[in-house]
Amino acid sequence: MKKFVSQDENYELRVRESFSKQNLMKTIGATLTKVLPGEVEISLEFRDDLTQQHGFVHAGIVATLADTACGYAAFSLMAPDAAVLTVEYKINLLSPAVGESLIACGKVTKPGRTLTVCSGDVFALKDGEKKMVAAMIATMMSLRGREGLVG
Amino acid sequence: MKKFVSQDENYELRVRESFSKQNLMKTIGATLTKVLPGEVEISLEFRDDLTQQHGFVHAGIVATLADTACGYAAFSLMAPDAAVLTVEYKINLLSPAVGESLIACGKVTKPGRTLTVCSGDVFALKDGEKKMVAAMIATMMSLRGREGLVG
Amino acid sequence: MKKFVSQDENYELRVRESFSKQNLMKTIGATLTKVLPGEVEISLEFRDDLTQQHGFVHAGIVATLADTACGYAAFSLMAPDAAVLTVEYKINLLSPAVGESLIACGKVTKPGRTLTVCSGDVFALKDGEKKMVAAMIATMMSLRGREGLVG
Amino acid sequence: MKKFVSQDENYELRVRESFSKQNLMKTIGATLTKVLPGEVEISLEFRDDLTQQHGFVHAGIVATLADTACGYAAFSLMAPDAAVLTVEYKINLLSPAVGESLIACGKVTKPGRTLTVCSGDVFALKDGEKKMVAAMIATMMSLRGREGLVG
Repeated sequence: MKKFVSQDENYELRVRESFSKQNLMKTIGATLTKVLPGEVEISLEFRDDLTQQHGFVHAGIVATLADTACGYAAFSLMAPDAAVLTVEYKINLLSPAVGESLIACGKVTKPGRTLTVCSGDVFALKDGEKKMVAAMIATMMSLRGREGLVG
Repeated sequence: MKKFVSQDENYELRVRESFSKQNLMKTIGATLTKVLPGEVEISLEFRDDLTQQHGFVHAGIVATLADTACGYAAFSLMAPDAAVLTVEYKINLLSPAVGESLIACGKVTKPGRTLTVCSGDVFALKDGEKKMVAAMIATMMSLRGREGLVG
Repeated sequence: MKKFVSQDENYELRVRESFSKQNLMKTIGATLTKVLPGEVEISLEFRDDLTQQHGFVHAGIVATLADTACGYAAFSLMAPDAAVLTVEYKINLLSPAVGESLIACGKVTKPGRTLTVCSGDVFALKDGEKKMVAAMIATMMSLRGREGLVG
Repeated sequence: MKKFVSQDENYELRVRESFSKQNLMKTIGATLTKVLPGEVEISLEFRDDLTQQHGFVHAGIVATLADTACGYAAFSLMAPDAAVLTVEYKINLLSPAVGESLIACGKVTKPGRTLTVCSGDVFALKDGEKKMVAAMIATMMSLRGREGLVG
């Protein structure tokens, strides 16, 4: 995988501050477990109040984690005054999201001045095994000098 | 829009029972506000604990509503013993999800024995106006004679 | 469907001139059969040299038509000096592309200063019947004052 | 990357025979340059009759190559009597497709009895450099005991 260099030496602080303002992350109990230039990981302990009708974590939550990881992976490479917003994404659900926890890993595929394309893989940890449960491609947009949004 | 006929006269009961087992829907406060053959609507009152860093409803929640509406739109046309699972979806975020409430409308584009393709539009209601905030295409799968999942 | 107004009264000429420069359209025999503000239709007579292994029109050609129709639907609403490029698209193939001809209809869902979101439906005409064979959502980008591309 | 084992020792012959029946591949001059279990590569020399209005290879052709590479990557892991069809795909165009040739590499992410999820990367070769120009996620379907289609 390509290594990226951030335009902003304070990229990690910037990512962590923005993440801490996402109320939904607190509501579902998601935490930021890795922040590198162009790569962000978000983790979630399994919780029964996030499930669909068969007791698996709802695909909407799986996608929320991947989208947010991709958004901050893109954000980590942006200029200090930029905001990031999700233009669109596509996700394939590969296996039921069951186990002790989920890890979403977002990586920048192609950074750009306006648009950044990312990939997001989500894994379930169960009984010591790590299984890929979802694959995403996401398009993120950089907004300069005005308000924007991740997610 | 095409009109569909369900294979199962109890389709509405089936959809409502399955929806009521989705713990995530209770957690976020989403309700089923329309169930027709091939068309399902889900509504959500704005809540501050579902937001991203700028105070808009998180894209992950917007997608959760659209995915679930599409899943049950597909489910409404399936055989009585079928379960439904989300294979994949793609969503474009068109405008910030702000306002008093969100309405996600899922409609079947093409039903099939194994796969059903749906479209999902999400609208925000604000000050008496209805604005489209997201567009989805989703692929749903029917599982016969065994366990499955929506979402 | 919403009605759009173009920023450029010469939008049709602009679309037709750009289309005429797409060598691929000549190679496959595609023609521009409708140009309205925010809506473009492209037609293709069935040809045996565009098929996949079962004699249907190849999905790649179906997608090419929808992508190009979406691109020019977006382009029709752009400023006179703008160029358009495809950021990304997603397509579902609903039925085999068989028959006498294909019609791809691209429509703008949400125009924007930088990004325009479109939907593209492709229909096959066979024995006097019109059947939907594919559904697309596409994101198009406007480039101002520099080179760009459709497709 | 995971290594896959085909269910069919004649997988390469099966892939090559099916590919040779795709008239579109002959029309555009695409060739099969790698066939492994779960991984297929398709190459295309640049041709002026496949371009869009700025002289780049049309996105529709880029997608055709990636879709076909993904389809045959999935097909290589299927049972001898299976046919494969493209359910849907999503593609991001990362850079203009310019240069001497294009290489599309399709790889299986998750094989399945009915559905197989693949990723497709397309590269342009120019002046001895290899640059990624597109990223795809595709869903392929296996049809047993009856006719099907790639692409």
